[in-house]
Amino acid sequence: MNPARHVGNMTWTDSTCPVARTLDLVGDRWSLLIVRDAMDHARSFTDFQQRTGVARNILTDRLRRLVEHGILERETAISGRRQVYVLTEAGRDLFTIIVAMRQWGERHAFADDEAHSTLVDESGSPLGRLRPTNANGRRVDVDSTEVIRDGE
Amino acid sequence: MNPARHVGNMTWTDSTCPVARTLDLVGDRWSLLIVRDAMDHARSFTDFQQRTGVARNILTDRLRRLVEHGILERETAISGRRQVYVLTEAGRDLFTIIVAMRQWGERHAFADDEAHSTLVDESGSPLGRLRPTNANGRRVDVDSTEVIRDGE
Repeated sequence: MNPARHVGNMTWTDSTCPVARTLDLVGDRWSLLIVRDAMDHARSFTDFQQRTGVARNILTDRLRRLVEHGILERETAISGRRQVYVLTEAGRDLFTIIVAMRQWGERHAFADDEAHSTLVDESGSPLGRLRPTNANGRRVDVDSTEVIRDGE
Repeated sequence: MNPARHVGNMTWTDSTCPVARTLDLVGDRWSLLIVRDAMDHARSFTDFQQRTGVARNILTDRLRRLVEHGILERETAISGRRQVYVLTEAGRDLFTIIVAMRQWGERHAFADDEAHSTLVDESGSPLGRLRPTNANGRRVDVDSTEVIRDGE
């Protein structure tokens, strides 16, 4: 499922920039916290409300938008009695962004003696550090990369 | 420079979660577009205003907050006549998040025939795909990872 198919009538902030399109689709604090919680087993409106602490009207709006944008899908729970929200394939693929945000936060938004949650693999070990590389696996950074726009 | 030192009196949305702290510091659309442009040679108020197209009062607010949060620093331009904004070390380290957003957007927010800008290395080749891995370099995803909270 490609959200681009769902958003044919979006007004993009900067239509040729993939960073800007991503921000138009998921770039607000509550949307990304909802995605974070969906990755951590939250499914119902109440789950998201309790985890994020967001006001109900904002949560209603963000869930609706995430469905419209192809990030979440509504499903009927197995009990048949309530609606739940499940990540689409595109939503699940936001994992890399969430991990990048988590790792930046760990490096820059905590003092050394402050406790924080940790994301671990099946053996209980923290993940490796995400590092941008070129196609050959060599590390790159802001200084060694450049944005090329169409027609340049 | 660690933004945590600058934000001693922040009210965090979810204080033990590094994803949430990152979103509290940089998680709105305009802040991340400003960071994107700072990585692409924008320096002055006018640069940011022209690139993002954001309203001047919002830009003023977001630049002030990014300075307060330790992401940008104000400097006097070499000409001595105007202020410019330069990424701090923590701001430069947002590169991984910006690259992750760019790559997700390329995969999910563009139709096959739509043109978009590209981030390239010094040889002009696109970057490799960022992929979360465990400490041994093995790929992990939503299903093979888990959030551990303090005390669990």
